[in-house]
Amino acid sequence: MRVGVFGATGYTGRELVRLLRRHPRASVVFTTGSGGGHLAHEDGLEQAADAYMLALPHGIAASYAARLREARPEAVVVDLSGDLRLPTAAAYKQWYGHEHPAPQLIGQAVFGLSEAYRDRLPGARLVSNPGCYATSVLLPLIPLLRDGLIEPSDIVADAKSGASGAGRSLREDLLFCELSDDFSAYSPGRSHRHVGEIEAALQERTGKSVELTFCPHLLPVKRGILTALYLKPTREVSELRRALEAAYAGSAFVHVVDAPPRLSDVVETNDCRISVHAAAPGRAVVFSALDNLVKGAAGQAIQNLNLALGWPEAEGLVSAFAPGAGGLAASGAKPAGAST
Amino acid sequence: MRVGVFGATGYTGRELVRLLRRHPRASVVFTTGSGGGHLAHEDGLEQAADAYMLALPHGIAASYAARLREARPEAVVVDLSGDLRLPTAAAYKQWYGHEHPAPQLIGQAVFGLSEAYRDRLPGARLVSNPGCYATSVLLPLIPLLRDGLIEPSDIVADAKSGASGAGRSLREDLLFCELSDDFSAYSPGRSHRHVGEIEAALQERTGKSVELTFCPHLLPVKRGILTALYLKPTREVSELRRALEAAYAGSAFVHVVDAPPRLSDVVETNDCRISVHAAAPGRAVVFSALDNLVKGAAGQAIQNLNLALGWPEAEGLVSAFAPGAGGLAASGAKPAGAST
Amino acid sequence: MRVGVFGATGYTGRELVRLLRRHPRASVVFTTGSGGGHLAHEDGLEQAADAYMLALPHGIAASYAARLREARPEAVVVDLSGDLRLPTAAAYKQWYGHEHPAPQLIGQAVFGLSEAYRDRLPGARLVSNPGCYATSVLLPLIPLLRDGLIEPSDIVADAKSGASGAGRSLREDLLFCELSDDFSAYSPGRSHRHVGEIEAALQERTGKSVELTFCPHLLPVKRGILTALYLKPTREVSELRRALEAAYAGSAFVHVVDAPPRLSDVVETNDCRISVHAAAPGRAVVFSALDNLVKGAAGQAIQNLNLALGWPEAEGLVSAFAPGAGGLAASGAKPAGAST
Amino acid sequence: MRVGVFGATGYTGRELVRLLRRHPRASVVFTTGSGGGHLAHEDGLEQAADAYMLALPHGIAASYAARLREARPEAVVVDLSGDLRLPTAAAYKQWYGHEHPAPQLIGQAVFGLSEAYRDRLPGARLVSNPGCYATSVLLPLIPLLRDGLIEPSDIVADAKSGASGAGRSLREDLLFCELSDDFSAYSPGRSHRHVGEIEAALQERTGKSVELTFCPHLLPVKRGILTALYLKPTREVSELRRALEAAYAGSAFVHVVDAPPRLSDVVETNDCRISVHAAAPGRAVVFSALDNLVKGAAGQAIQNLNLALGWPEAEGLVSAFAPGAGGLAASGAKPAGAST
Repeated sequence: MRVGVFGATGYTGRELVRLLRRHPRASVVFTTGSGGGHLAHEDGLEQAADAYMLALPHGIAASYAARLREARPEAVVVDLSGDLRLPTAAAYKQWYGHEHPAPQLIGQAVFGLSEAYRDRLPGARLVSNPGCYATSVLLPLIPLLRDGLIEPSDIVADAKSGASGAGRSLREDLLFCELSDDFSAYSPGRSHRHVGEIEAALQERTGKSVELTFCPHLLPVKRGILTALYLKPTREVSELRRALEAAYAGSAFVHVVDAPPRLSDVVETNDCRISVHAAAPGRAVVFSALDNLVKGAAGQAIQNLNLALGWPEAEGLVSAFAPGAGGLAASGAKPAGAST
Repeated sequence: MRVGVFGATGYTGRELVRLLRRHPRASVVFTTGSGGGHLAHEDGLEQAADAYMLALPHGIAASYAARLREARPEAVVVDLSGDLRLPTAAAYKQWYGHEHPAPQLIGQAVFGLSEAYRDRLPGARLVSNPGCYATSVLLPLIPLLRDGLIEPSDIVADAKSGASGAGRSLREDLLFCELSDDFSAYSPGRSHRHVGEIEAALQERTGKSVELTFCPHLLPVKRGILTALYLKPTREVSELRRALEAAYAGSAFVHVVDAPPRLSDVVETNDCRISVHAAAPGRAVVFSALDNLVKGAAGQAIQNLNLALGWPEAEGLVSAFAPGAGGLAASGAKPAGAST
Repeated sequence: MRVGVFGATGYTGRELVRLLRRHPRASVVFTTGSGGGHLAHEDGLEQAADAYMLALPHGIAASYAARLREARPEAVVVDLSGDLRLPTAAAYKQWYGHEHPAPQLIGQAVFGLSEAYRDRLPGARLVSNPGCYATSVLLPLIPLLRDGLIEPSDIVADAKSGASGAGRSLREDLLFCELSDDFSAYSPGRSHRHVGEIEAALQERTGKSVELTFCPHLLPVKRGILTALYLKPTREVSELRRALEAAYAGSAFVHVVDAPPRLSDVVETNDCRISVHAAAPGRAVVFSALDNLVKGAAGQAIQNLNLALGWPEAEGLVSAFAPGAGGLAASGAKPAGAST
Repeated sequence: MRVGVFGATGYTGRELVRLLRRHPRASVVFTTGSGGGHLAHEDGLEQAADAYMLALPHGIAASYAARLREARPEAVVVDLSGDLRLPTAAAYKQWYGHEHPAPQLIGQAVFGLSEAYRDRLPGARLVSNPGCYATSVLLPLIPLLRDGLIEPSDIVADAKSGASGAGRSLREDLLFCELSDDFSAYSPGRSHRHVGEIEAALQERTGKSVELTFCPHLLPVKRGILTALYLKPTREVSELRRALEAAYAGSAFVHVVDAPPRLSDVVETNDCRISVHAAAPGRAVVFSALDNLVKGAAGQAIQNLNLALGWPEAEGLVSAFAPGAGGLAASGAKPAGAST
């Protein structure tokens, strides 16, 4: 399968190429810079591949998607930008501040939260990959909300991300001397763009309207997101855990664990680790950890490609839980080791 | 004023000595290792100084305090351990897991949250310095709760601390290779010891019973605590901010700011910076940042010493807000700079 | 092939297990803790495997090697400790400060600097894996010295290593709060143990006696060694480069590059990158970069296992230069290695 | 004394303002951005102050210096750029690649390596502050070379600097995600600009012509330079140490120590720590550590201002060795602590 990558020079695009190169069924036939290349008719890029990954800035990505959909309806297009995540043009304008670049595509893409959209991904030809924060929030929330185990009216997400989540942009606040030894929150309350896609996906998958409190923070590390969700259970906390275990039983990548997960458990894997803990009476805390560049971006994009094409879901991807392949995992993922 | 420091080799004790050495009215006359020295009668240490700072492990510190109180009733003793922070022996046993080492001192110490206990600190001879997390939680919470501006029944604190908060102990999880690039929560829910002293101080100062949800995290930085408080206001969010501004008007070290504070704003100062933000309907988020070794430990201990002795409260301490002394501030505290 | 790992809990042992688990021909049949386990007759461990990797402390490893050699002469034993690197018991005592634990093995092991000992590794049953610093110094030096391109009398090596090189030991200087933001030299001049094995290998492979100046430094990073060699060429600097290119032509892992190599070029690969630059008249500087846990320890141990058993040299190992996968790889980029 | 700072927004300028604000005799009367402001006649800035610090880019700084010298011959001007460090216009063009912006000033400035130019700094009205690397190399080299204790023909400097040395520029290689966990050399051999000023100062102060081998490296830390000098002594190594001790006896900031100095010993102080060690026969290694923003830039600029004006040399500056003021020192500078 010939795969083309638009936008291969940012952190996400680079990770995408890295992962695709070890995918046994995919062959990277071209990459373009993060500006996006021209995709003029004469480029022929829209004929060059059978699947396209768009790691382009929002506002640009959707017009590429539109062009590729038209030129090659049978090709798979996975858009990693935010352009196709929201259900209406109005919502897009609200969160992104400008008109949608390709409104004809709104509603056409499957939201690529792989585990939650398994019903719609097989055969999909246009996939909108979720945001990294959104993935970390939605994987634990969807089953709990769908099963009525938590109050929809009072959900708090306190999220912390490594700096690669901000991309490779030349911003002063991303300089080593600014970020090293420092830590801070940004876009507090409800102002971060991922709030929009989280609430839209919760509505779509669970039928519940949620107004989320969401505070992202910037960690002085390169990779990884750890989110703490403060929830109001309607049942025993142990039932929340059981519901999550049931929802992700057999999942290659989403795992319910006992102790609060560490970034190093998940970095360089496509895993998301979730733990559930009692808190004050009537409160529970749920932690969710993933690698923002893998399960939060490039890895999940490949997982979606696999699902869309009917390939084995985990192909080309790494899990610290993979049978016999704990060792495949990166340094952080400490394999248990048969001990004497 | 001759000051003796018991336990000067840990991170807190070292910071204490560093700060005391530039205090214009204090002279460090002896220091002991963090084991605590012997304090046998023949040492004469209890006669050597006029003020004593105890940066010793809990379970040990209180017996030193008792001995010093007996030998030198007129000397000031500031205990930086957790031994004297809880109001009853039962509470101590619950949170620390063993009997109190000097039960006769329970209820004798003033809780040294300087700004909140200004009524009791002048003339105090036994001060119990609060925990670093407790300081970061209590400074914003006390005024809001006392004034009835938030629901006492639903308070969430998501706290993140640099590694020096864990002390200088030889624990594998504190090795550079374990902590660097990593991030994780620990003691989730209500299991951290500081929960006890936070709730006791809230009860004592505001008359409200609170059952706090509190999740501390370990940051890959050396210094600094940033806490996010998720609260249910009973009034407009702007009133919360105004109440905090009023509570800390004229305070040398506690400041209400607009943007979420960064660790680098407060590191190596005795400041605590607080910001207030709207969140989902019916929710607010309040951030609080301080240096765990300064305002969270050694700096506040000196502030308490100043208050106990009737000295100027800020003597020997650094604030990025000090008039004309923005320049005293550490690198993080960017002085405004008159510009052309 | 059944492989047993003694000492799998330190950083090197953990990396060894991680790499072996993805080796297509090896199966890890047991691991022991870094204390070493007992290896009593009743354990049966010396029958359990066909190859043994010893990631044990020096002073202990050689007695394990002796026991395994006796019990299973046909098994391959790769010792990653310093016990078998020196040519005489006297040299061992000089550098390690105690008697050799198994003097009968001295001179029995092949020195496992894979590229330099390709003549002796095939069929070897006892391999002594070189030290991480030694590997970084010897790979560039051996060809230059052997070909008479540099003065043997004046060689300076200024080496910088990540903290995992010091192992997982509970030393205060390895705590995050001590090492973060810091940098320093240690064992300056000629006092580091690797000086002994470097000089012994240079003598053995090139016939030249060298008295090396060697200064190691501790970097605030987890992995990687970068060494600067200050040399006196006897010919043009360009000839030094050509000689290194010729020596490593066709090498899977050792590559001569143009720009000074970065740690991120080699971390998590088995590569060593070398560059050559002119300096003051009569001087050249040669940089050498590798991952201390991979080419400097676990990866080279597997490379030696491959060579000893006649397997493809690169099996189970990662190179950024591997055909089809390689050079694209920036820091993150770990190409496939041996795959599906 | 009214002091004006041109270029106060870069890391050096910011540090300068921070230090000046706590200087008891200086008052910062204006600052400009690092672009430089206009300094048009109508600004009146050249009348606004009695001393001027130029933390401007090279190529710009000298024209400001020329203008200020003309307008206010009696004012002190300290230029922190490289514009006035080289003795001839030809040398300037060679190292900086363009014509000198104010050739009439060449030869007019005193080279502000404070300890080495004490004879010329009192009364100076134009001071050229040395580069950070140059300071770390020259402080140990000048006494050794002047006293004939080392061969001038063979000097190697392997230097490592924190990232603030590269300034606050928006360069991709200075992003947190690029620099964190990484380490590399740059400008190897003799290509770094500081080589020119080092050799010029050695010539001027010792009469010896040196062709230096100099390799700078970029450390993943914010502040600090550690340089290793590999030298050929003409006498016993112990005599080198004694000569340095004699040269810096009574110095407030330059200290000869026993163990290799750490960055944390000197960061946030104006100190330079030097140690001397034997190496291979006929070789010695000398380490030199300082804070690139303090002794390597802003601190030394203030030291020069003090010397030029006849003020106490250490006024407004921090040393971990200052009598009674160890405590002024930053966290890294561990005060000795009288112990029981």
